Amino acid sequence: MEKEIKDTAVLLLHCPDKQGIIATVTEFINVNKGNIIYLDQHTDTVQKVFFMRVEWELEEFLIPKEKVQEYFSTLIAKKYNMDFQIYFHAQKPRMALFVSKSAHCMYDLLAHYEAGDWNVEIPLIISNHPELEKVAEKFNIPYYYFPITKENKAEQEAKELQLLRENGITFCVLARYMQIISPEMIKAYPNKIINIHHSFLPAFVGAKPYHAAFERGVKIIGATSHYVTEELDAGPIIKQDVARISHKDSIENLINKGQDLEKVVLSRAVEKHIERKILVYKNKTIVFG
Amino acid sequence: MEKEIKDTAVLLLHCPDKQGIIATVTEFINVNKGNIIYLDQHTDTVQKVFFMRVEWELEEFLIPKEKVQEYFSTLIAKKYNMDFQIYFHAQKPRMALFVSKSAHCMYDLLAHYEAGDWNVEIPLIISNHPELEKVAEKFNIPYYYFPITKENKAEQEAKELQLLRENGITFCVLARYMQIISPEMIKAYPNKIINIHHSFLPAFVGAKPYHAAFERGVKIIGATSHYVTEELDAGPIIKQDVARISHKDSIENLINKGQDLEKVVLSRAVEKHIERKILVYKNKTIVFG
Amino acid sequence: MEKEIKDTAVLLLHCPDKQGIIATVTEFINVNKGNIIYLDQHTDTVQKVFFMRVEWELEEFLIPKEKVQEYFSTLIAKKYNMDFQIYFHAQKPRMALFVSKSAHCMYDLLAHYEAGDWNVEIPLIISNHPELEKVAEKFNIPYYYFPITKENKAEQEAKELQLLRENGITFCVLARYMQIISPEMIKAYPNKIINIHHSFLPAFVGAKPYHAAFERGVKIIGATSHYVTEELDAGPIIKQDVARISHKDSIENLINKGQDLEKVVLSRAVEKHIERKILVYKNKTIVFG
Amino acid sequence: MEKEIKDTAVLLLHCPDKQGIIATVTEFINVNKGNIIYLDQHTDTVQKVFFMRVEWELEEFLIPKEKVQEYFSTLIAKKYNMDFQIYFHAQKPRMALFVSKSAHCMYDLLAHYEAGDWNVEIPLIISNHPELEKVAEKFNIPYYYFPITKENKAEQEAKELQLLRENGITFCVLARYMQIISPEMIKAYPNKIINIHHSFLPAFVGAKPYHAAFERGVKIIGATSHYVTEELDAGPIIKQDVARISHKDSIENLINKGQDLEKVVLSRAVEKHIERKILVYKNKTIVFG
Repeated sequence: MEKEIKDTAVLLLHCPDKQGIIATVTEFINVNKGNIIYLDQHTDTVQKVFFMRVEWELEEFLIPKEKVQEYFSTLIAKKYNMDFQIYFHAQKPRMALFVSKSAHCMYDLLAHYEAGDWNVEIPLIISNHPELEKVAEKFNIPYYYFPITKENKAEQEAKELQLLRENGITFCVLARYMQIISPEMIKAYPNKIINIHHSFLPAFVGAKPYHAAFERGVKIIGATSHYVTEELDAGPIIKQDVARISHKDSIENLINKGQDLEKVVLSRAVEKHIERKILVYKNKTIVFG
Repeated sequence: MEKEIKDTAVLLLHCPDKQGIIATVTEFINVNKGNIIYLDQHTDTVQKVFFMRVEWELEEFLIPKEKVQEYFSTLIAKKYNMDFQIYFHAQKPRMALFVSKSAHCMYDLLAHYEAGDWNVEIPLIISNHPELEKVAEKFNIPYYYFPITKENKAEQEAKELQLLRENGITFCVLARYMQIISPEMIKAYPNKIINIHHSFLPAFVGAKPYHAAFERGVKIIGATSHYVTEELDAGPIIKQDVARISHKDSIENLINKGQDLEKVVLSRAVEKHIERKILVYKNKTIVFG
Repeated sequence: MEKEIKDTAVLLLHCPDKQGIIATVTEFINVNKGNIIYLDQHTDTVQKVFFMRVEWELEEFLIPKEKVQEYFSTLIAKKYNMDFQIYFHAQKPRMALFVSKSAHCMYDLLAHYEAGDWNVEIPLIISNHPELEKVAEKFNIPYYYFPITKENKAEQEAKELQLLRENGITFCVLARYMQIISPEMIKAYPNKIINIHHSFLPAFVGAKPYHAAFERGVKIIGATSHYVTEELDAGPIIKQDVARISHKDSIENLINKGQDLEKVVLSRAVEKHIERKILVYKNKTIVFG
Repeated sequence: MEKEIKDTAVLLLHCPDKQGIIATVTEFINVNKGNIIYLDQHTDTVQKVFFMRVEWELEEFLIPKEKVQEYFSTLIAKKYNMDFQIYFHAQKPRMALFVSKSAHCMYDLLAHYEAGDWNVEIPLIISNHPELEKVAEKFNIPYYYFPITKENKAEQEAKELQLLRENGITFCVLARYMQIISPEMIKAYPNKIINIHHSFLPAFVGAKPYHAAFERGVKIIGATSHYVTEELDAGPIIKQDVARISHKDSIENLINKGQDLEKVVLSRAVEKHIERKILVYKNKTIVFG
């Protein structure tokens, strides 16, 4: 069930590492009577960058919600040259679900959604195939079918983008969506499009990785969830997990086990995004606990 | 190889959760020109207790090492009713290794020690059996043999305690040491004696757990490392890990896999203790990353 | 997608370990022109019991399906004092799904079912609560609600048993079904009722295990799937899996991670049962690869 | 301790998949009064190849040890066009350990050896560096130092090969041996040289994989043990394992965790090889349980 919590503010920031940042930020919240309920930070000692996530209760906070951004920017962010975002728990992220033909990730995400596990809205599902509309109907979520060909890709994605904007979508999840996302959409949702794909130890390139892995007799297969960037499947990694296999596993087993992994890994990545616990710097994520 | 680092101070503390603790503590370090290189904290929202670990470089720190304890206590700890310890990296923890007859954990610990992986001294090894003296000799570490019987247990442990004191031992590691530690020694080293034992899913009590696990056909076995308290094997858990087994595993395999687990889990727990990254509250550990 | 395969026979057997069993059994299949596509066996050297699973294609098999049982019994089983069952792939197992209020396992099982991952029929869902009927409707599976009280338990279970018989149910899956199964039903479905429950390292008894685990600060939680026997949660274990946790996990997180585990572990156990790859002897399973 | 077992014969074979192979082979052993204590087989349904491992007690076996090879070849192998080897438990494999400068794998292997966990002899250690001679001395194993330069590589390896032959070495283990093995030595020990290396999800090529993995922010690192073939690090995989990491892990932590993995994975691969449970076909292993 949805957990009852008072509204909170979440501050995500990174900046050049200096002394006193934590003291300054927590002081800013404390003097304004915000009750800090979460604080985690990380210093990348190689890049000399400081990362922080703070969450505080707004009940007695002196600065009104619509002013927090401005005050923090003026009083603190400028001084430390911070890159930051402020979110409010009461403002739920709005997620668009992209699917093609395979439903395993879609079901797992929607079951979490319907169970109220996550603080999110899913106003719509987009697909380049008609098959999964019947699943969308089970969950009473509008299903938009955009058949895509080389010829109409640009124009169809433009329509998709407009649909996302009209519905105030804040992030997209590619649940085994088998279409390359165009640079336009990536620019519109930078580090806001989550993808899932299989991974291997070692990696196998080419069209049929499971077959290659099978022929090499790998003992472990994996799945990687990441933000989409222009370089295919090379964006910042959010979550990964693996499963053990053996010579007894047929290619079909590999694919089934791979799908179970994809399902769990994608759901965990989406959960972290919804909780606003992910910071991205260069091509790397900081995922807070 | 031993890594070159400047001397640092490590502060571990817990206290009733209040606003402003992080700001106050980091401020204390900053104003005295300490360069914070590590900060992690945790709030137990159920117990309403705040836990924190801070580490800072001493190079330009204004307060002399021998005064840090006093100053922090006077200026800060009292106010927040803190329970705290301060350590200096240059003061290596001194570890006593307790063994009986099986050598797998002993070898793994000593290999890490000799490789210089850890900031620790191991001045002596204590055993209730003579067999492993030959291993101690390989590593040129004095081996003290204290045969223990019901009759002489108290008196032998008294001698062991004196030996530990004479050698300035700060913590003990029971590397498959098959003797119950008496309350006297536990009092002398509260949350400073690390033990390792096998665990099962579900648990099996009694003399032959591996046989019970085998007969029940468990699919997973585990190992648990914890601090020793008066209640046998019920102290605060530091590390755990598991291995998969199947009906193909003989009891002997179970025991071998269990030993591999014990080895790795104990070494990781010892490493965390050496790094002063463990806080204990009631019967639970906070193990910082 | 449902994989296209010719009909096959699956033979599961165990008997006192003797020489020549494999030779005899495979010879029986070969001379009758059965093409063996799977053979796995195991010898419990402690109990001196031999276990075997053989699967062969029926296309050119000389013995008619309805006679295989009789012939094998007469020509082979008697001689080796075998306990055996023969199944045909074309005769799908028929599964009854039992649920109460939580839907995570139910969704995962039904998603696999609808995706055609498994060679099974699910003609009905039984519950002691009305809430999940809406989920059953999504998948168009009849949902039977049997409210159970101390007073009516015996009589309600009798109705359930009759319903199972009328629908030719061959096994039952308790997907977080929160009712103790009575001895009558267990007798009606010996080693045919699959349950899932959480497990801990070490185990915690009592009403609130997650709270106990949280207070002890365990680092690993698990889930165990087993066949139901009269001794509560002590039946033969089919599958187990674990997840790592830390002091950062709230009790709510523990429960969520526990549910993700339950989901995956139960589905894998059900899959093995459907594939007829599980042999039970005494209180232990042999789960073939 | 070394387990007391009667001498046994181990037969490893593969051949084109046909009906009746298992029946024929087990019949051959049974009629000659061999008591089968292990049988496992696998059919690669893609390649249509059959793989089998059988082990039987020799106590009452009618065929004398020195004749088993000949009889089996004549009576059975020819007919099924089998590729097979026969080993006897009493004839211990003889292992040469190759090391360079890092000792973690070396210690783990030698601790297992000294504990008598494995049925193996380690008559010598070979290195291209002098540093680890002190470790070899701890275990009283001769240490041969062969400094290798571009100029003398061929000639030094020739000396190594002669040394291996003189000592009746049956297989080699590269415990972080930092030298590419020449084709001559690989030809002399086909699928008899075991190597260990780190692996990543996804893979990173180039000189500093840990740094690349760190910069990409991978969440999992792995280790892979394989037989050495002429294509670098692309030989048949024997064992793999992984460890979870996070943004909190420094490059040094990554390397330490990687070393713990390498240690365990290499030891498990070596154990399987010693137990003669590995079959290699094309570039893939069948590793029996």
